[in-house]
Amino acid sequence: MSGNKRVELITTGDELLLGLTANSHLTYIGEQLRRRGGSLTRNVVVSDAAEAIGSQFRESWARADLIITTGGLGPTCDDRTREVIASVLEQPLIHDPAIEAAIRERFARSSRKMSDNNLKQALRPEGAEVLPNAHGTAPGLWVEKLGRILVMLPGPPHELIPMFEEQVLPRLAARGFISSEETYVQVRTLGIGESALEALLTPTLAEYPEVGIAFCAHPGQVDLRLSSPSGRYSRAQLQILANRCREHLGPDFLCFGHDTLVKIVSDLLRLRELDLAVAESCTGGALASAFTDVPGASKCFAGGIVCYSNDCKVQLLDVPECLLKQHGAVSAETAVAMASGVAERLSADYGLAITGFAGPCGGTTEAPIGTIYLGLHTPQGVWSRRLSITGSRTLVKQRAINAALDWMRRDLLRLQAITDTLPHSLPHDEPTRQEARRLIGLGESES
Amino acid sequence: MSGNKRVELITTGDELLLGLTANSHLTYIGEQLRRRGGSLTRNVVVSDAAEAIGSQFRESWARADLIITTGGLGPTCDDRTREVIASVLEQPLIHDPAIEAAIRERFARSSRKMSDNNLKQALRPEGAEVLPNAHGTAPGLWVEKLGRILVMLPGPPHELIPMFEEQVLPRLAARGFISSEETYVQVRTLGIGESALEALLTPTLAEYPEVGIAFCAHPGQVDLRLSSPSGRYSRAQLQILANRCREHLGPDFLCFGHDTLVKIVSDLLRLRELDLAVAESCTGGALASAFTDVPGASKCFAGGIVCYSNDCKVQLLDVPECLLKQHGAVSAETAVAMASGVAERLSADYGLAITGFAGPCGGTTEAPIGTIYLGLHTPQGVWSRRLSITGSRTLVKQRAINAALDWMRRDLLRLQAITDTLPHSLPHDEPTRQEARRLIGLGESES
Repeated sequence: MSGNKRVELITTGDELLLGLTANSHLTYIGEQLRRRGGSLTRNVVVSDAAEAIGSQFRESWARADLIITTGGLGPTCDDRTREVIASVLEQPLIHDPAIEAAIRERFARSSRKMSDNNLKQALRPEGAEVLPNAHGTAPGLWVEKLGRILVMLPGPPHELIPMFEEQVLPRLAARGFISSEETYVQVRTLGIGESALEALLTPTLAEYPEVGIAFCAHPGQVDLRLSSPSGRYSRAQLQILANRCREHLGPDFLCFGHDTLVKIVSDLLRLRELDLAVAESCTGGALASAFTDVPGASKCFAGGIVCYSNDCKVQLLDVPECLLKQHGAVSAETAVAMASGVAERLSADYGLAITGFAGPCGGTTEAPIGTIYLGLHTPQGVWSRRLSITGSRTLVKQRAINAALDWMRRDLLRLQAITDTLPHSLPHDEPTRQEARRLIGLGESES
Repeated sequence: MSGNKRVELITTGDELLLGLTANSHLTYIGEQLRRRGGSLTRNVVVSDAAEAIGSQFRESWARADLIITTGGLGPTCDDRTREVIASVLEQPLIHDPAIEAAIRERFARSSRKMSDNNLKQALRPEGAEVLPNAHGTAPGLWVEKLGRILVMLPGPPHELIPMFEEQVLPRLAARGFISSEETYVQVRTLGIGESALEALLTPTLAEYPEVGIAFCAHPGQVDLRLSSPSGRYSRAQLQILANRCREHLGPDFLCFGHDTLVKIVSDLLRLRELDLAVAESCTGGALASAFTDVPGASKCFAGGIVCYSNDCKVQLLDVPECLLKQHGAVSAETAVAMASGVAERLSADYGLAITGFAGPCGGTTEAPIGTIYLGLHTPQGVWSRRLSITGSRTLVKQRAINAALDWMRRDLLRLQAITDTLPHSLPHDEPTRQEARRLIGLGESES
């Protein structure tokens, strides 16, 4: 565990300072350390200029216990991290034949021609250990000096991520910067605010006087993290406490761990062997796209129809023209007709529809911008729901999608509650049993 | 222009260091300054802790000409930026009745109850100027001291962005940190690599010996920026040079300025009064979603169908079952049938279809993961195209969408070239005339 260790991340790249690329390294590394009880003290973004990297590294090296640098290890002339840092550390760059062999082999395998500047990547500061790169030519570098650690990582995410997970995290755990596994049990909630969540769970949490409690609010979602800073509680005990929290939460409990809402809804559908079709107006395909981002979604996602125009609603979703005329395209009646239409057209068990005014233009007196109607078609019946969402077009779309997914999730849970024998009726070693246990909150410790 | 001025952005927030939120402030502010010839020297992300903010501010204040801070101006106890910085500057916090009045008025207007901690936001460091916040309770603060400038901005983007554009940028321009308008003419290209672009344009660019040239590569797109660091060329002259570059580029020219590919395709469709329907398999709605992110897209976007399963392709897109059996769902024949099917079902002029294996599972010997077929149905005929894309599922989806949009764009341009009288046949003051001029590269200077 990191205790009071100072961990700095230095990200190099003009493209970050110029606003061309988001700093995904910070998001990724920050999360990985957090899950294992560590944290970043600071992240500094500097340009690719040698002076900028050098002065920042000197400053950070003087005060940090661990420095992670990302980027600047490539073959071209604006990749200067290796050279600059070797010079600040006063550890000359030496040629490493093993790195060169790995680079040559990589080029040979892909039948590409190696250019001379690639050989620059075979240099490493004297005394630095090499972190092999299975997905690119630039190896990572690991330096320990005067009780401090420096890790230099390549910039491309598909090279950085496996290197970080397979090589850096275990090394950092072995040196006490982080824990070797996740240090907290996360209870993910949806539909309850941070302060209401705290009020609801305080009596239960108070029974565990030394438990570490952290609330973390995302848009529409609050995570509760239970840890044991004093080491008094095992992970299994934390899980028992998490299970008790889950009981108080009812359907506001989303999952243990890190799953997304759309993943949870997909799991619930697959577990019950149901499938879903979606009809979207103002969200324009983003709901369908969210489902198809979940690998294996084709098992429960029958398809979607994006129907911006009234014509399209009539032609593809069989929404009656007279209904559109009488109630308008943004209405409870249209939402329900769209949900039923898409479910019938695609022979799906569930139909989920979103219609509304996302802005910045559109809207009527009765249904101003931000008015969204959801429609849900289920084997048990049809429903609609009205939402009023404030914010930008993007935000309105995102919130409408989250509301639609959560509504569907709650419906699937209700269905589960009615026929609540499923987890026990599954054979013990079937993979879906674990899924089922997690979904209804029995957790890992008992599985 | 910033010259050698040192500009530091200090972003506060545990959620950034913990990897919960992307640092959108860096991306936004970096881009805004860049467009006007400025740039950030450094961005530092620190936690919400008072010591962290204080020590970083002290460090940055000692070396920077301009410091921008974002976040930490809210009403709760973890919003400490105002207090900490006032203390480092030795400018005591004083109560500002005008800020309090604005906060009270804001609450009154929305009929919400103001809590006492909101009054903390009526404090400002003595000598600081107030930047009114039209979209929230926390005003921005502007401090000038010892020839240095400090700007403190609220964190929520819908508050920060208008404040930055309407108040901060003009002030920074007046003080010489940035130019009052964009300092370069941007030529956005698509389908040509950075080095090929440089080779193509060097003879033309060489005629303007003092022109500033910068290439900036995004995924699938390279921007060329023409500027005049010496001040020799006016913006109009730069535009003439840009127009000449455009002539050399042919259809690899995307636009002048900052428009996105999907915006350009929408404009081309609207200009020609055509509409489009899309059919998506592996991209699962993301193409439709991209269109509906363009305000006003309903004028040219008829709708979309997400058809993951074969059944859905047959039922909703009229893809013949025998064709799916003979050629498979990932084939040129299916792509074309999908494109025609969706165009016919939605009575659209154009049909654009994507089918393929995005991974991580799926794929066959003939069509491994990353194989994508595009289908295009146009009033002139139908075509298909095969792509092989390497990368993650997300990357494959994104690149397939870009390729499909670009293919369609080139087709629309070809159509334009054949009937190339449009821009001149439009009345002089019609708004679409400007659009047309921009699209075919006549640019702003002549309009």
